[in-house]
Amino acid sequence: MAITVISGGVTAAQGFQSAGIHAGIKKSSKKKPDVAVIFSEVPAAAAGVYTQNRVKAAPVVHTQKTAAMGQGQAIVVNSGNANACTGEEGAQSARLMAAWTAQGLGIEEGLVMVASTGVIGQQLPRDIIQSGIKNAVDHLSPEGGHEAALAIMTTDLFSKEIAVQFSLGDKTVTLGGMSKGSGMIHPNMATMLGFITTDASIEPEILQKSLKKAVDKSFNMISVDGDTSTNDMTLILANGLAENKTIESDGALLEQFQEALDYVCIALAKMIAQDGEGASKLLEVQVQNALIEADAKKAAKAVISSSLVKSAFFGEDANWGRILCAVGYSEANIDPDRVEIFLESAAGRIQVADQGTGLLFNEEDAKKILQEKEIKVIIDLHQGSQGAVAWGCDLTYDYVKINADYRT
Amino acid sequence: MAITVISGGVTAAQGFQSAGIHAGIKKSSKKKPDVAVIFSEVPAAAAGVYTQNRVKAAPVVHTQKTAAMGQGQAIVVNSGNANACTGEEGAQSARLMAAWTAQGLGIEEGLVMVASTGVIGQQLPRDIIQSGIKNAVDHLSPEGGHEAALAIMTTDLFSKEIAVQFSLGDKTVTLGGMSKGSGMIHPNMATMLGFITTDASIEPEILQKSLKKAVDKSFNMISVDGDTSTNDMTLILANGLAENKTIESDGALLEQFQEALDYVCIALAKMIAQDGEGASKLLEVQVQNALIEADAKKAAKAVISSSLVKSAFFGEDANWGRILCAVGYSEANIDPDRVEIFLESAAGRIQVADQGTGLLFNEEDAKKILQEKEIKVIIDLHQGSQGAVAWGCDLTYDYVKINADYRT
Repeated sequence: MAITVISGGVTAAQGFQSAGIHAGIKKSSKKKPDVAVIFSEVPAAAAGVYTQNRVKAAPVVHTQKTAAMGQGQAIVVNSGNANACTGEEGAQSARLMAAWTAQGLGIEEGLVMVASTGVIGQQLPRDIIQSGIKNAVDHLSPEGGHEAALAIMTTDLFSKEIAVQFSLGDKTVTLGGMSKGSGMIHPNMATMLGFITTDASIEPEILQKSLKKAVDKSFNMISVDGDTSTNDMTLILANGLAENKTIESDGALLEQFQEALDYVCIALAKMIAQDGEGASKLLEVQVQNALIEADAKKAAKAVISSSLVKSAFFGEDANWGRILCAVGYSEANIDPDRVEIFLESAAGRIQVADQGTGLLFNEEDAKKILQEKEIKVIIDLHQGSQGAVAWGCDLTYDYVKINADYRT
Repeated sequence: MAITVISGGVTAAQGFQSAGIHAGIKKSSKKKPDVAVIFSEVPAAAAGVYTQNRVKAAPVVHTQKTAAMGQGQAIVVNSGNANACTGEEGAQSARLMAAWTAQGLGIEEGLVMVASTGVIGQQLPRDIIQSGIKNAVDHLSPEGGHEAALAIMTTDLFSKEIAVQFSLGDKTVTLGGMSKGSGMIHPNMATMLGFITTDASIEPEILQKSLKKAVDKSFNMISVDGDTSTNDMTLILANGLAENKTIESDGALLEQFQEALDYVCIALAKMIAQDGEGASKLLEVQVQNALIEADAKKAAKAVISSSLVKSAFFGEDANWGRILCAVGYSEANIDPDRVEIFLESAAGRIQVADQGTGLLFNEEDAKKILQEKEIKVIIDLHQGSQGAVAWGCDLTYDYVKINADYRT
């Protein structure tokens, strides 16, 4: 299927507006934006995927209930304060964020989804948020995608946006998204957030399944430091303005939609991995020919999460032993004696292990490959035909610095 | 029960001799010892616990079979080469190590257990090992515990030994042990190894269960970087020379033996955590009042393994949010709204969270507590009466340096 990348992020699709403004939750002198609103001009099918952490922030608890109805029309997000571990007062603040947004937009409160990211354990400054939401609603624009993406950043070094177009039957459908990174800093900047908008017409239950599938292949396959935040969430709104034949069941239409949604989610996930705290390299781990997909996922995630593997890539060391060792403890069903390992980048490709043991390889070639900024580790299990891909980054001095030395 | 700490390590108990010599597997100019032999003058009950990694080094595969017979009389260990990912040639080398040791000692080959630690993926230099084993056998001594402990070190900064005495009925029983650390470096120095000797008389099946229990409370509750090596193993030999009434079943005698074995294993495990690569602090996480022990263990291990928590302690930051977040994603059955968190060290104790939310605490007090070298995190789940303790270390620049920059 032809997928065309376009600009516009969450406002690329028809009928979506957004804004990102500085309310004052972030205490920086640079007046960084910290409140974003996304608005669909008509009610949309809505779906969400949420953190598995048992400690769930107030906005997660709130939005999980709201989005379960399958309908939504707006998303309000603040950065600078996670509204996590804040008890009943925090729950009330999340409800108020929805209420203020609904009031400003003239829509029902139940159509507003709420997300937060930032410091854990502090109450939201309600006055600041309230005027910030009002301000954001006033600034809503069909060109507001980029501002919204800036307003959800915490320690991210760059904003993360993408949009694509594709054909669904005789209609052109647009799908756009934005996200923020998963590193956590002082005292607890948290959270992976993802927000997707589309003008596709699709039934809410199908949308929920489709989003879950896409998240499992993308956001759930990245690892910066292995910690799952209290605030993680990915939301999607599908407002139907593309007027395609509504996707109501499995079949070709859903497959095409899924391909585009996967594409957008994977692109956003890779941006998060690349922008991991202190990261100097983007790592991609491809596990091939596993017996079942779950094995491929386990193996890929174990390798991408290994501090030893991550440190080795920072040191540009072709350390196949650490990779094989991580595959070994991943609980994937593997036969160590069949494993092949390859390293690949723009500078070339070498095989470093065969049948579970190391190969002699040219150290110069390895060095050139590992000096690149994007490196692929390909692990062939030679047991079946299932695969999985995971993304992450190297472990650097800067990771420790960001997470230990924030006071200085 | 009164447990008295004594010196002597693995040769503290009656009838044990050991040696540690330089064979030449380690290529350092300092002629570091790299082959150790432990010998019991009489055949002993034997038991072992092994790595769960699917990629198992040749000595692990070999010893798992040998020790399953429940009898042993000697342990041969080399450092400098893990004999892992070495195929059939490596398997043969592990068998030869047992054969050469048996030959030197004049005992059956099936009574020799083999362990290795060091570089992954390189064949053992058989000539060097063979003459090294001969040399070690010639140097066996009832005072050789310390030399043996030195010979199993890789990146360890200090040798890890302990021995204790306790009364079992009307007899005095001695239990001693040594271990090496779990950090992994260039290119793959691996492995947690533990070797315990005792003159207690105990049935092999009971010994196996008792060792498993002790390992689950000690070596399995430490985390340096979360990676499980291809070579991890803990072995015990119990030669019966203390002439206590043989421990054949559950009961008071076994409880006393278990208490002493737990003590020895926990002491060795804490030394490993303290000597984690790059570590500047020993962290102890106590989880109290869980519904079941498994929940307490999951929560304690998640906290001690979190890169964010570890970085925070390096930065001497009382970051209760990261601790609570790790408890939340641990998959332990907890109610976040009941969790209390305390920080404690030689400098004092403060509570930092109550009912799942942060408390105002004196920053000066927190600073003093966190400046210490040994810090306890106490997490009260307020749900039941089960507990668990885990040990680890902080995440420092030096960890990254050791694991990335070994070339320089």
